[in-house]
Amino acid sequence: MSLFFNVVPVADAITMARRVAVRTETETVPLADAFRRVLADDVRTDVDIPGFTRSVMDGYAVRAAETTGSSDTNPAILAFRGRIAMGTGADGRVNASECMYIPTGGILPAGADAVVMAENTELLGNDVLVKKPVAHGENVLLYNEDFPQGAIVLRKGRRISVQDTGVLAAAGCKGVPVSRLPRVGIISTGNELVTVDTVPGTGQVRDVNTVVVASFVREQGCLPVVYGIVRDERDAFSGALSRAAAECDAVLISGGSSKDDRDMAAAVIADLGEVLVHGVAIAPGKPTIIGRCRNVPVMGLPGHPAAAFIVMMVIGRHLLAGMTGETVPEPRTVPAKLALNVPSAKGREDYVRVRVENGIATPLFGKSGLLNTLVQSNGVVRVPAGREGLETGETVDVILW
Amino acid sequence: MSLFFNVVPVADAITMARRVAVRTETETVPLADAFRRVLADDVRTDVDIPGFTRSVMDGYAVRAAETTGSSDTNPAILAFRGRIAMGTGADGRVNASECMYIPTGGILPAGADAVVMAENTELLGNDVLVKKPVAHGENVLLYNEDFPQGAIVLRKGRRISVQDTGVLAAAGCKGVPVSRLPRVGIISTGNELVTVDTVPGTGQVRDVNTVVVASFVREQGCLPVVYGIVRDERDAFSGALSRAAAECDAVLISGGSSKDDRDMAAAVIADLGEVLVHGVAIAPGKPTIIGRCRNVPVMGLPGHPAAAFIVMMVIGRHLLAGMTGETVPEPRTVPAKLALNVPSAKGREDYVRVRVENGIATPLFGKSGLLNTLVQSNGVVRVPAGREGLETGETVDVILW
Repeated sequence: MSLFFNVVPVADAITMARRVAVRTETETVPLADAFRRVLADDVRTDVDIPGFTRSVMDGYAVRAAETTGSSDTNPAILAFRGRIAMGTGADGRVNASECMYIPTGGILPAGADAVVMAENTELLGNDVLVKKPVAHGENVLLYNEDFPQGAIVLRKGRRISVQDTGVLAAAGCKGVPVSRLPRVGIISTGNELVTVDTVPGTGQVRDVNTVVVASFVREQGCLPVVYGIVRDERDAFSGALSRAAAECDAVLISGGSSKDDRDMAAAVIADLGEVLVHGVAIAPGKPTIIGRCRNVPVMGLPGHPAAAFIVMMVIGRHLLAGMTGETVPEPRTVPAKLALNVPSAKGREDYVRVRVENGIATPLFGKSGLLNTLVQSNGVVRVPAGREGLETGETVDVILW
Repeated sequence: MSLFFNVVPVADAITMARRVAVRTETETVPLADAFRRVLADDVRTDVDIPGFTRSVMDGYAVRAAETTGSSDTNPAILAFRGRIAMGTGADGRVNASECMYIPTGGILPAGADAVVMAENTELLGNDVLVKKPVAHGENVLLYNEDFPQGAIVLRKGRRISVQDTGVLAAAGCKGVPVSRLPRVGIISTGNELVTVDTVPGTGQVRDVNTVVVASFVREQGCLPVVYGIVRDERDAFSGALSRAAAECDAVLISGGSSKDDRDMAAAVIADLGEVLVHGVAIAPGKPTIIGRCRNVPVMGLPGHPAAAFIVMMVIGRHLLAGMTGETVPEPRTVPAKLALNVPSAKGREDYVRVRVENGIATPLFGKSGLLNTLVQSNGVVRVPAGREGLETGETVDVILW
């Protein structure tokens, strides 16, 4: 192998990650378990929402025109014709110069077209004094104005949010079609690695990537399957990868991907399948690998935790989204002014950790192995491949994490 | 009871939510389960990170001064003195005019003070040609420059992020001190409510709030305990609340909180304990209740799902954060220009759902009962209590969801 990478642009790496991804099957889960899952089909409502014209206030159902010009000193006077009960069929009717008491959520009685808030009324004997006019339709939700029966309420590919679970409930979706959680095998490789419960000896470091990759996989709505630390020995590594590829829907390997002759991730992936990308024009993260073992996508991440994290965020999430069918939203950014120049090599996308405070983004020029910059930063600034750097005072978009 | 609320400002409601919150105990969970939990104690590293000065590149360990002025046409020539092995003690030494091959993560040998990337070198017989100068310390992580032994790596109150799990691993924190997940009882009340698997009859609506509140509770790192739909009857309601308060750390009730004489949440809470707030100067969400049954905090949310969601986001999260000890970060906002005027009542904080696209925030003036505005919006704009509205073209901070 050459000492040099044949790097591809970040966009090509993302395309390849999407291409090797294999969709998991659709399964149906109870609504109570659907939060954070990825919708595998469009969901339609089986009923009109709302199913009837209802009040959004406690107050009086009226004919709006009869309240025109009313005020504290010159109230409209309407005859009180009883109360609307909750949860039962409509039984009332409001005729001219009449009103009915209606609680929030009650069915608007026939004849009425608006609701006056209780606070703007006064009950006087059998009359209701209305002290503030309402417009036609005021304080009322119209029959099926939210979603008509059969309308799509949520589209497939959506990660189900808190609010979305409510829409699914209203639509009667008690079993939600979601993509099965992809099982993602996680392998950390390196002779220098020891487990977290070991005190590292000279030359040794604790395995940070297993838990970082597992947490990321969980955050992306997948199921981590941990294979632990594998030595930099071809047989051990090959065995672990074969096993993970047989048991999982995708495999993420960290370490063993740089162009050192001791590094073997690419060689072993090539043995068991194919390497499609080895080297991406991204910093940190150049030695990234994308390949597959038979039909199982395999990604090789850099050994440095901070670099592995950036590569997962920029490229790996597209692989996982390809497995669940999730539509990946544009990253959320906030604009901020750069506090310092950010140099960069042309032809390479740089992701520089920054701390944003009061609209000022201060780059944390930590070396990519430093963990403290990951904790102290609250986002990254992307330097596009076509730029040689960003200048102090320039307004940049910070991708928050 | 009066027809009118005695409303308190949002800030006072938040203070009260914090005051009634009771911290859960600390428990220790395995690192693999710590993601998204709230740290209950500061965590310190038991070792220096890194434990030795190490290379961040594959290349050659050198004395930086000896590479000064080197170039492709005028390389520095250093004698190759062997290779650093990974994961073992330092065994090498670089003397004047010498270098050693060092893989990423290898211990920098005595005498060396920098690493030249392999790409900028050429091995020629027993000599290494260095074609690019390096500075003192370049491509090297210094002993304990990340975190010295005993330093606090993460502070209590932090919700553990993906990156944080890596820092905990490096610090040797295999058992992580976190707050026990608060059990949050969820009650939906209303005679008009039917379960999700029921087709609503006239005047009925499906219970949307149970699943919305449960998803929110989950998102906030708590454990939802669902008590289902309770009828608007004093005994049924009182029984459900007593049971939930006995079994849970907090109770969230939706519905039954507005100032209609049929509504009883406040009355029942007062019977079983005390009502501290009934009415908040917020729209939507005015009929919010904060109270407690003995030592268990109880919050009454509006029955409208969109209003319940806003109240949970603005006030409820502080109650739950008070239970876990989480430090609530400032909400994330993006600046955007308003596409339309937003009227508001002075003295009231309004939360208006907006859709932000390309820096333009378009208010969705949905009535608070509409679900589709929750799904179509991607955030809210807060109109402060002191303002009577916001104007078209004004730059506002949008709180994203």
